Amino acid sequence: MVATHDPRNFKVVGTRPIRHDGFDKVTGRAQYGADIRIPGLIWGEVLRSPHAHARIKSIDTSEAEAMTGVLAVVTHADFPSIEDRTIEAGEGLVDFIRTAQNILADGKVHYKGHVVAAVAAIDRNTALEAAGKIKVEYEALPVVNSVEEALAPDAPIILEDLVGDDLGEEVKNTNMARHFRHEFGDLEKGFEESSIVIEREFKMSMVHQGYIEPHNAVALWTNDGRLTLWSSTQGAFGVRSQTAGLLNMDESQIKVNPVEIGGGFGGKTVVYLPPVAALLSRKAGRPVKLQMDRKSVFEGTGPAPGGTLIVKIGVNGDGVIKAATADMKFEAGGFPGSAVGAAAICIFSSYTIENIRIDGYDILTNKPKSAAYRAPGSPQAAFACESVIDEICEQGGWDKLEFRLKNASKEGARRADGPIFARLGMEETVQAAMDSDHWNTPLEKNGANGKLRGRGVASGFWMNGAGKSSVTLALDADGAVMMNEGSADIGGTRASIAMQAAEVLGIPAEDVHPSIPDTDSIGFTGVTGGSRTTHATGYAAYNAAQSLIERLKERASMLWGIDPDSVEFKDGVFRSASDPELNLTFKQLAARLDETGGPVTAAESVNLSSAGNGTATHIVDLEIDPETGKTDVIRYTAVQDVGKAVHPAYAEGQIEGGAVQGIGWALNEEYFMNDDGEMQNSSFLDYRMPTSLDMPMIETILVEVPSPFHPFGVRGVGEVPLVPPLAAVRNAIHDALGIYLYETPMNPRRIMDGLKEKNG
Amino acid sequence: MVATHDPRNFKVVGTRPIRHDGFDKVTGRAQYGADIRIPGLIWGEVLRSPHAHARIKSIDTSEAEAMTGVLAVVTHADFPSIEDRTIEAGEGLVDFIRTAQNILADGKVHYKGHVVAAVAAIDRNTALEAAGKIKVEYEALPVVNSVEEALAPDAPIILEDLVGDDLGEEVKNTNMARHFRHEFGDLEKGFEESSIVIEREFKMSMVHQGYIEPHNAVALWTNDGRLTLWSSTQGAFGVRSQTAGLLNMDESQIKVNPVEIGGGFGGKTVVYLPPVAALLSRKAGRPVKLQMDRKSVFEGTGPAPGGTLIVKIGVNGDGVIKAATADMKFEAGGFPGSAVGAAAICIFSSYTIENIRIDGYDILTNKPKSAAYRAPGSPQAAFACESVIDEICEQGGWDKLEFRLKNASKEGARRADGPIFARLGMEETVQAAMDSDHWNTPLEKNGANGKLRGRGVASGFWMNGAGKSSVTLALDADGAVMMNEGSADIGGTRASIAMQAAEVLGIPAEDVHPSIPDTDSIGFTGVTGGSRTTHATGYAAYNAAQSLIERLKERASMLWGIDPDSVEFKDGVFRSASDPELNLTFKQLAARLDETGGPVTAAESVNLSSAGNGTATHIVDLEIDPETGKTDVIRYTAVQDVGKAVHPAYAEGQIEGGAVQGIGWALNEEYFMNDDGEMQNSSFLDYRMPTSLDMPMIETILVEVPSPFHPFGVRGVGEVPLVPPLAAVRNAIHDALGIYLYETPMNPRRIMDGLKEKNG
Repeated sequence: MVATHDPRNFKVVGTRPIRHDGFDKVTGRAQYGADIRIPGLIWGEVLRSPHAHARIKSIDTSEAEAMTGVLAVVTHADFPSIEDRTIEAGEGLVDFIRTAQNILADGKVHYKGHVVAAVAAIDRNTALEAAGKIKVEYEALPVVNSVEEALAPDAPIILEDLVGDDLGEEVKNTNMARHFRHEFGDLEKGFEESSIVIEREFKMSMVHQGYIEPHNAVALWTNDGRLTLWSSTQGAFGVRSQTAGLLNMDESQIKVNPVEIGGGFGGKTVVYLPPVAALLSRKAGRPVKLQMDRKSVFEGTGPAPGGTLIVKIGVNGDGVIKAATADMKFEAGGFPGSAVGAAAICIFSSYTIENIRIDGYDILTNKPKSAAYRAPGSPQAAFACESVIDEICEQGGWDKLEFRLKNASKEGARRADGPIFARLGMEETVQAAMDSDHWNTPLEKNGANGKLRGRGVASGFWMNGAGKSSVTLALDADGAVMMNEGSADIGGTRASIAMQAAEVLGIPAEDVHPSIPDTDSIGFTGVTGGSRTTHATGYAAYNAAQSLIERLKERASMLWGIDPDSVEFKDGVFRSASDPELNLTFKQLAARLDETGGPVTAAESVNLSSAGNGTATHIVDLEIDPETGKTDVIRYTAVQDVGKAVHPAYAEGQIEGGAVQGIGWALNEEYFMNDDGEMQNSSFLDYRMPTSLDMPMIETILVEVPSPFHPFGVRGVGEVPLVPPLAAVRNAIHDALGIYLYETPMNPRRIMDGLKEKNG
Repeated sequence: MVATHDPRNFKVVGTRPIRHDGFDKVTGRAQYGADIRIPGLIWGEVLRSPHAHARIKSIDTSEAEAMTGVLAVVTHADFPSIEDRTIEAGEGLVDFIRTAQNILADGKVHYKGHVVAAVAAIDRNTALEAAGKIKVEYEALPVVNSVEEALAPDAPIILEDLVGDDLGEEVKNTNMARHFRHEFGDLEKGFEESSIVIEREFKMSMVHQGYIEPHNAVALWTNDGRLTLWSSTQGAFGVRSQTAGLLNMDESQIKVNPVEIGGGFGGKTVVYLPPVAALLSRKAGRPVKLQMDRKSVFEGTGPAPGGTLIVKIGVNGDGVIKAATADMKFEAGGFPGSAVGAAAICIFSSYTIENIRIDGYDILTNKPKSAAYRAPGSPQAAFACESVIDEICEQGGWDKLEFRLKNASKEGARRADGPIFARLGMEETVQAAMDSDHWNTPLEKNGANGKLRGRGVASGFWMNGAGKSSVTLALDADGAVMMNEGSADIGGTRASIAMQAAEVLGIPAEDVHPSIPDTDSIGFTGVTGGSRTTHATGYAAYNAAQSLIERLKERASMLWGIDPDSVEFKDGVFRSASDPELNLTFKQLAARLDETGGPVTAAESVNLSSAGNGTATHIVDLEIDPETGKTDVIRYTAVQDVGKAVHPAYAEGQIEGGAVQGIGWALNEEYFMNDDGEMQNSSFLDYRMPTSLDMPMIETILVEVPSPFHPFGVRGVGEVPLVPPLAAVRNAIHDALGIYLYETPMNPRRIMDGLKEKNG
């Protein structure tokens, strides 16, 4: 429990310097995975399944292998067999057996786009042609297109050796990988005390993170058995550990070079191409590059899960929530593992509720294996919960923000899965929303040309991860500090981490030069995900800077011939505690390293339990054309507790980006599948993400309730802004049109259907 | 004063594991400067002077600039002017003004091959063609070809603004940059007490280090004013500081990527191409590659200085050296700064001599600016000193090794320039030579076909630098340790440094994975030169490993719930001091980092004063054809005090390589100049270096007198083996033919001349 620094004294934290990687990115110098060229590089291509569900009867690679210019062909059989494994297959986040099956199909294809084989050749065209010459004989099977179909009694079984976990009991011959429950309090009593009880069912479609940069990998397997990888990823160490696990190698035999990343949003935390490129490189004896196109990204990587959610909430006459239940069936896609676990943690965590039951289901369907997408599971959960809250407020006649303030989650309250909340800012964000210009500016309900306007609000919760990070610092004689850190920089974390070191060292942010070296060259650092990076890697930078100061105090004491303990450091100046004449600025002391023992370096690592819970409340104004259902966002305000915004512009950028992704999810985005399990809109033309032209300026209000887990009070920022928008938009549609929708996306078709139903 | 470890306990130090970089180098995967390809890369070429000495009347770059495909042309005028400089020009090792003049000629050319202008274009042919279109008008000047010509009263003045330093007095209108003197004792008395006094004059030619890889540089000057360099160099930080000084930039604005190096031997400690590539990149807005050909390497980089040496030594009737003087005139080449300073330190340091005078002269000639070449100055010095010693022993009838043993330098004796020797192994190496099979095997003086055989011996001294180095370590969960260090690896130092960390950590050398990251990613580390790297960077690795152990003791104490101070570490096992049940191997503890606070890292830097003096004694047997003067080395034994050989095979390799370079210098190599100052043999065809076919197997004897400056007793190894061979060969020629030669190379022509003179 720290947060020891008075924010009024900050000199660097809270300012908005130019990001260190800005010039390289703006001028096109930054190197992404696709830019990698190394001597001898050859191209790989994969062959993907045209079927959503089929048994592979045979794979004949002979014709491809015989082609001039083809250097390697691999299939699932090239993975180490289960019998040969010395590394445990893994049970948790990454099950190596299932991941290997997902990366290269093992006897069955589970979704359209599932990779069946891969080939490496001297150039991309040869590789493409060779991939086309691989002959696969399929036996098509009936397709499971939704959680309802998956749970039907006669459902086709997707993963035949799956042993499901139904509240601790083993289930075979099932598409349900897991069913768990969180329960506490006395539900029956809670609902009895409630004067309003509303239960609703919601349906959601899979949506994709839509990062601009497709997945890529370059692999070089050298003759000494070592593997070097380049891949645009949220975590180089994650690529290392997953590839090691999949290929049954020691992690230390693999070096991952973290090239720049063009967006990830959770989708680049798991590997698809690196192990395949590695297998091809081992066979070919050459470095191999693999790169997806957009269709492959949609069809073959991990979207956010769709599914159904049933939420029931009971409220007493004073507007106090007395009980709540949720039944959430998430489609994991072709292999087990959806975000339903995190959804269950988040769904009721914005509120203090004494009686709760949450049932979560992880269910296989013939769709791509889902992956993390920014606050995984929480947007879906909030869509359901915050929609029911809105209906309750309507029915009870309560102000929607006052209701949220009254029921807000507080320090000491219990999270659904057990932990007790530390200080969090739910009340403060709701209060800030209530105080906002947006909320206090009445909305004119009628727009031009018969358009109708509505305002909606919703809150959201995300628990913000922390974990392991490492930072090393080296001081240059010119007073600059070279900083190495292990976190992939997606949203400006080079700056936000460097600024924390600069704050401690009493120097400008520009004097800290951040680098993200390869996995051989920095201590273990977890993935950039869970909103952990500015918090956790920043904390490691804080610690490393403190270590550097301690070492510099020794240097000053050598120059002054005094005891190191009597050297003080404050406001960027080293001073003798007893003799005010003895003082040196940081830069002055740096210039005298030569006299005092040479270079000064420091390395520190952390393993943290929490980045401090994240809470947000969003307000949205919509204008809807009732003739067409076309919906425009005309005003949007996102209020969020950021703990302490290290670089406010980037915190705001995270919030704006999250809100826009949520709006896209709410209004437009979906995996539009036909009955054969074929995605019908796997391009950016047909998969409609919002562009800057679709959006108003997003207003942001940064609330700063210091996290008790960080010396500067920093909380995770990046994920919770995607949580409230779906329900906020849905509630605004109701305010405009008087209809409640229960399914995403709330596109013109659904709005027109809703209006038709309302108007009879 | 350390050397605290009993060598009998070493488990890793002293073994011969496979070097970590071996596979990459053997299979051609290792990336050298010439392998660098980055997006947008263009080619640079330089225009070199055809004159050895000329005034530049004009440079017209307009035609080159107008060529299609030419993106930049630069001349000396593109360097920051003296008035604009904010960084001091530098006076010591690197004078930025003189270096800038050497890199791009400033109004005058000082030697043939001096760069006058440079051009960057879209491809190499265009760049070559454009360089040819730069019109330079020269006014040719008389050429200074030797130190004698340089000091002649009417000598042409090469550097017109030079202010020479003659024993502290300023001299103008001179080619003598510096004349210094070391003097102590009573010379007159010393020579009076001598019964034998011999004075001889020696002449030596410039020779080149002959590294296989030509110089190269890739520079990318980005729009934010930052400069990224790739260059095969002995020291990435040296490239950084020199380029920063030359371009008047903050060091921290420059990042140097240390690609592999194909030999340096001192010649890659100074920059030629990186600043030129940087200037071209700034103008072109593109990354630029420059690469030399062999002719440019010979004519435009820094060979070892030639010159004249006069040595006089007096010995009393007991064979004790009573007095010695030396007058050494070294040709610096086109700009000030030869190795004569180091030569003066070394020349008499193999012996304890009470009365000494040494005069050193640094003299300009119209030849390439000389640079460091492996024990810079000491081979030349030993050629003179050890030759006179041989003549004294012949005259006095003393055994040549017993004479050296009697007079050997010892702990407590005084070095010519002042310092008092710590423990060194001169006596032990001479004794080991006396005990060697080679010395104790009589040489049959007559070979086949009338060839004659002779045996020679000589000793040598090098003071072994130390300085600044940084190492960081990060422990992986699988027990491997990722090591970052800042030293360019020329001779296997990745292995020799990693082994020192492994020794401390109690793990195999293979479990330490060394990397050499860029200058942003490791603390300051000095150049790989002065035989410092295994000693100093190894010491930093030792310290970093000790830090890692301390941090791991804390982790073990957490697991066991005991005080960290009560955890012991020995033989690779952590143990509770009180409870023998509590113990974990290094690897076992590594696997439990997750439970105890996450990753463990450590960073340490050192600044050391000495790597412990290096001493060597070599024995050589020659077979000479008196009809042709052709000389073959038929047996060679090199004895050297290595302190403690960390990786004996690489210590032996250094000794073998140094001996062979010395043999080449002795018998074949020279800058063969015509009267116009044009090198006539600037190719490997005509500049005759020994090949493996010319050499017998070099026998090595490693003497281990622990250095008092290193915990394992490690001394520098790389340079002193080049010191004795020249005189040893010369003395063996005398033993074979009865003639003493006084000039290098002692090629067939000089041998035949000597025989003619002897035979009248």
